[in-house]
Amino acid sequence: MKYSIGIDIGTTTVKCILFGEGVQVVAEAGREYKTLLPKASWAQQNPEDWWKGVAESIRSILTESRIAPEDIKVISVSSQAPAVLPMTKEGEPLHDALIWMDRRSTKELEILEEKIGTKKVYEITGNRLDTYFTLTELMWFLRNHPDMMKKCHKILQVNGYINYKLTEVFSIDATHASLTQLYDVHNNCWSEELFEAIGGDTKIMPDIYDCMDVIGHVSKKAAEETGLSTKTVVLGGAVDASAAALEVGVYGDGSIAEMTGTSSVVMFGFDGLVTCNELSYLRGVKENTTILFGAMNTAGGSLKWFRDALYGGETPQNDAYPRINKEIEAGAKNPTGLIFLPYMAGERAPIWDPNARGTFMGLNMNTTRAEMLRAVMEGTSFALQDNLDQAVKTGIPIRDFICCGGCSKSDIWLKIKASVIGQEIKIPSVNLGAPGGLGYMNAAFMGEYKTPEDASRAALQIKKIVEPVEEWIPIYKELYQIYLDSYQSLKSQFAALAQIK
Amino acid sequence: MKYSIGIDIGTTTVKCILFGEGVQVVAEAGREYKTLLPKASWAQQNPEDWWKGVAESIRSILTESRIAPEDIKVISVSSQAPAVLPMTKEGEPLHDALIWMDRRSTKELEILEEKIGTKKVYEITGNRLDTYFTLTELMWFLRNHPDMMKKCHKILQVNGYINYKLTEVFSIDATHASLTQLYDVHNNCWSEELFEAIGGDTKIMPDIYDCMDVIGHVSKKAAEETGLSTKTVVLGGAVDASAAALEVGVYGDGSIAEMTGTSSVVMFGFDGLVTCNELSYLRGVKENTTILFGAMNTAGGSLKWFRDALYGGETPQNDAYPRINKEIEAGAKNPTGLIFLPYMAGERAPIWDPNARGTFMGLNMNTTRAEMLRAVMEGTSFALQDNLDQAVKTGIPIRDFICCGGCSKSDIWLKIKASVIGQEIKIPSVNLGAPGGLGYMNAAFMGEYKTPEDASRAALQIKKIVEPVEEWIPIYKELYQIYLDSYQSLKSQFAALAQIK
Repeated sequence: MKYSIGIDIGTTTVKCILFGEGVQVVAEAGREYKTLLPKASWAQQNPEDWWKGVAESIRSILTESRIAPEDIKVISVSSQAPAVLPMTKEGEPLHDALIWMDRRSTKELEILEEKIGTKKVYEITGNRLDTYFTLTELMWFLRNHPDMMKKCHKILQVNGYINYKLTEVFSIDATHASLTQLYDVHNNCWSEELFEAIGGDTKIMPDIYDCMDVIGHVSKKAAEETGLSTKTVVLGGAVDASAAALEVGVYGDGSIAEMTGTSSVVMFGFDGLVTCNELSYLRGVKENTTILFGAMNTAGGSLKWFRDALYGGETPQNDAYPRINKEIEAGAKNPTGLIFLPYMAGERAPIWDPNARGTFMGLNMNTTRAEMLRAVMEGTSFALQDNLDQAVKTGIPIRDFICCGGCSKSDIWLKIKASVIGQEIKIPSVNLGAPGGLGYMNAAFMGEYKTPEDASRAALQIKKIVEPVEEWIPIYKELYQIYLDSYQSLKSQFAALAQIK
Repeated sequence: MKYSIGIDIGTTTVKCILFGEGVQVVAEAGREYKTLLPKASWAQQNPEDWWKGVAESIRSILTESRIAPEDIKVISVSSQAPAVLPMTKEGEPLHDALIWMDRRSTKELEILEEKIGTKKVYEITGNRLDTYFTLTELMWFLRNHPDMMKKCHKILQVNGYINYKLTEVFSIDATHASLTQLYDVHNNCWSEELFEAIGGDTKIMPDIYDCMDVIGHVSKKAAEETGLSTKTVVLGGAVDASAAALEVGVYGDGSIAEMTGTSSVVMFGFDGLVTCNELSYLRGVKENTTILFGAMNTAGGSLKWFRDALYGGETPQNDAYPRINKEIEAGAKNPTGLIFLPYMAGERAPIWDPNARGTFMGLNMNTTRAEMLRAVMEGTSFALQDNLDQAVKTGIPIRDFICCGGCSKSDIWLKIKASVIGQEIKIPSVNLGAPGGLGYMNAAFMGEYKTPEDASRAALQIKKIVEPVEEWIPIYKELYQIYLDSYQSLKSQFAALAQIK
C-alpha cells in the first residue's frame, strides 16, 4: 500500500491528513496554536508552535492508522500566506514569523508608495501594494532590526519552515513566491528593483521549487521527532488557497469557486498569467496557471455579527443559524428592497477600502428582523457579484460556480446567491480544503493520476445544484446597481467616520 | 366660580378638559374615533363621530365635576389640521372630512405644480405645495365631485365643524386659515389667484375669526345634546399645534419647543410674519405672530420600530423602554460613531423626501445592540438639529429649548439631544398639550390674565433642566456633518429604491 500525507498550516490550526489510494482519507489529526498580538495591528506566530503541532499530528495519525512509516511515500505542506520568518544559516528562527494579518509595516508602505508607486508594484508583481504581503514586512525587519537581519541567511514562508524542519533544505514553493510581492511575475524571477527599493538582496530568498518538485527526504532528526521514515520525500507544497482551489476544481479557464465562512474568498482559474488590479494574483499549483481571488472580509462574519448583536447570540444548546434560515424562509420570502453593505471590517476585494463599514439602508416601519437577515445574505451576494464583475473584465468565461464552506449550508442563502449571480451553484459532497488539494498532488506524484488536476476531476463529486429563482433575477439586478451606487455614494462619509476620535 | 372648557379634536381622540380658576384642571374626558382608509393613501373621518365624542365628553365632565353649566363661561376648540369638510347651507356634511394625512390629491398637486408652480404657492401661502393642505384636497372635491360641490355652501375645518354644532355659525379661525394653503399671508385675505387655479370661489370659505374672537353662544340644540348652558360663549379656537405651542411657552422670538412622540414636531416662535421654505408656516394664537414648525415623521417611531423588530417587542407586562435606556447607559456610554438616518417613513422637514428611508451606517464587528439603540437617539437628535439649522437661517435667536412628549421621558435621550444641539433642554412639569393652550386663551378671555401668553408664562413650570455633556459636543458636531452628507449622498439611491417593484 502507498500512502501520503497532506499538511496544512492554517492561521489557527495545523490540519494533517493521511491519504490512502484513490485519495481516500485514512486518518486525520490537528493541533491549534496561538497568534500573538503584541501591539494593535501586529500579528505574529512562534514557528516552533507550528512544528510542534505538525510533529504531534503526524505521530497521532501514525498511531491511529498503524501503518508502516515507510509506506508513506510523500508529504506535501500548504500554509497561510504570505509570511516572513528570518532564519539563521543554522536553521534557527531569528524572530517570530509575521503572518499575513500583520499590519505593522504601514510606514514601509508609505515609503514604497512614494519611492516606487503602487502602479509599478502592481505591474511587477500582479498585486496591489499592501502590508498583507512579504514586501513591506521584510522591509520592516530591515529597517527596524538591521543587526538581527545581518544574521539572517534566508527568509521562509510558513510551509517553508516545516519543509526545512522535515528536510533541512531552505525552500519556497512557486505559489508562495507569487504572493511575496517580491517576485517579478512577468520575468519569473525575484525583482531586483523591489529588493533594491527595500534595501535588501535577492540572496535572502531561498531557492524556488515548483509545487510538485522534490525538496528532499525526511531527515534523520525529523524522522526521530515525528516517527516518519527517512525514505519519505517532501514536495515543494503550495499556498493553502492554491491547494484548496485545486481541491474544488479551480484550475484553468472558467472555473470558479467561493469558499465562504466568516470571510469569503472567490477564486477564478485561468490558463497562463492574468492579473487584475481589483483582485489578488496567485499562481495555481500547475505551472503557468493563474488563480485570481477576491477576499471579502465579513461574509459569514456579517451574519455572525447580526446573530450576536441582534439575534440573542449563540450557545452550544442554541444553534441560531437553522432558526435564522427558517425565519427568512417564513418571513422574507422575496427580495427585500433593503441594501446591506457587508463591510463590517472594512473590505478587501474589490473595493479595497479599510474605512468602509456595514450599512443597512432602505429600512421602513414595516421592516422585520427576517428581512434584515435576508438583506445580509443579499448584500454578501452582491459583494460576490462585485468580484465576479472584476473577473469578467479580464475576459474569463464563467463555466462552473462551486460554493463550499460554512455558509454554503444555508439553502436560502444559496438560492439568493444563485439569483444574484444569475447562475446555478454547485455544492461539492466533500470539502477537505487545502489538504485535499495536497492529496491530489501526492496522488499524481505517486503516479495514481497523470496530473493533480486529473485527480481533482476524478474525485470532485457534486452533492447538490442550486438554481436561481427566475423572478428574483431582474429585481436583484436593479438592487445590485443600487448596492454599488450606495457604496460609491458613502465612500467619503466612511472616510470621514474613520477620522473621528 | 368661573369655569371654561378646552376641547382638542386630535387625529385619533377628542380630549376635553374642564378648567377652574388659575387654569387648574377640574375634570377630563376623552373619546376615540376611527380614521377610515377606503383606499391606499386615502384618509377620512366622519364628522358625526367628532361631535358624538365631544357631546359625550362634555356630559362626562359635567357629571363628574357636578358644576352648574352656567358657570362655564367659555369654550374653545382646537383640532388636527388642515382638513376639508364640505357643508350644505343647512349645516349637513356632504362627505366625510378629508384629514391632514389624506394623500389622494396627488394628481391635483401635479396640475398645480404645472399651473402655478411650487415657488409661487410658497410665496403666497408661506408653505410648500403639498397634498397635506386644504388647497389640493378642495381641488380634488371640485374635480371629482362637481355636482356635490354645487350644493356646498362652506367648507369647514375640524374645529369649525364643532364650533358650528355648538353655535350654528360657520367659521374658521385665523390659525386654521393660515394652514389651508389658500390664504395669502402677506395680504391677509383668501388668495383669489389660488382659488382661480383650483376652479373655486373664495365665497366657499367661512368668515375668519381670530382665536379669541367670540363666534357665538351655545345654541339651544347644542345645549340639549351636551348639557351645556346657552349662556356659554364659544371662541374662534386654534390649530392644535398653535394651542400646544402656547401651552409650552412658544410665542414670540426665540422660543422653541419640541414635542416628541412617535413623530416629532419642533416649533419656533416669532414676532411678525416669517416664512422658511424648509419649515412649515402656521400663525400663532396671537395676531401677527408666527410659528414655524418642522415635522419629523419617525422620531420615537424609529425607536419603536427597533423595539418591535429587533428588541423582542412589547407586552403590557414588559415595558421595553426603561430597559432600552438602561442598556444604553450601561453599554453605550459615549457617542457611537454610527450614523442613523431616522427616515423610516420618508421625511418631512427639512428634507421633504418621501423616498428617504431608515439607514444605519458605520457598523462593525464589535457594534452592539446598545450602540445601535443609542444611534437611533443620536440620529433623531441630528434630525432635530437639521431643523434648528433651518430656523437659525431666518435669524431667530435661540432662547429657551423646551422638550415634551413621550420621548422626553428618557434621560439618556435628552442628554444626547442636549449635546447634539449644544444647549440645555428644559422639561415642563405639566404637559396638557393643545387643551392647555385653550385653557390659557379661556383664562385671558375671562380676564384672569391680560393675555394668553401671560397665562402661559404664569403656569409653565420647569421640572428638570438637562445639560449637554461637554466632551460629546465636538464629537457630535463632526458626526452631524457626516449625518447630513450621508443623506445627501444616498438621496438618489433612495429614489432608485422607491422605483423598484
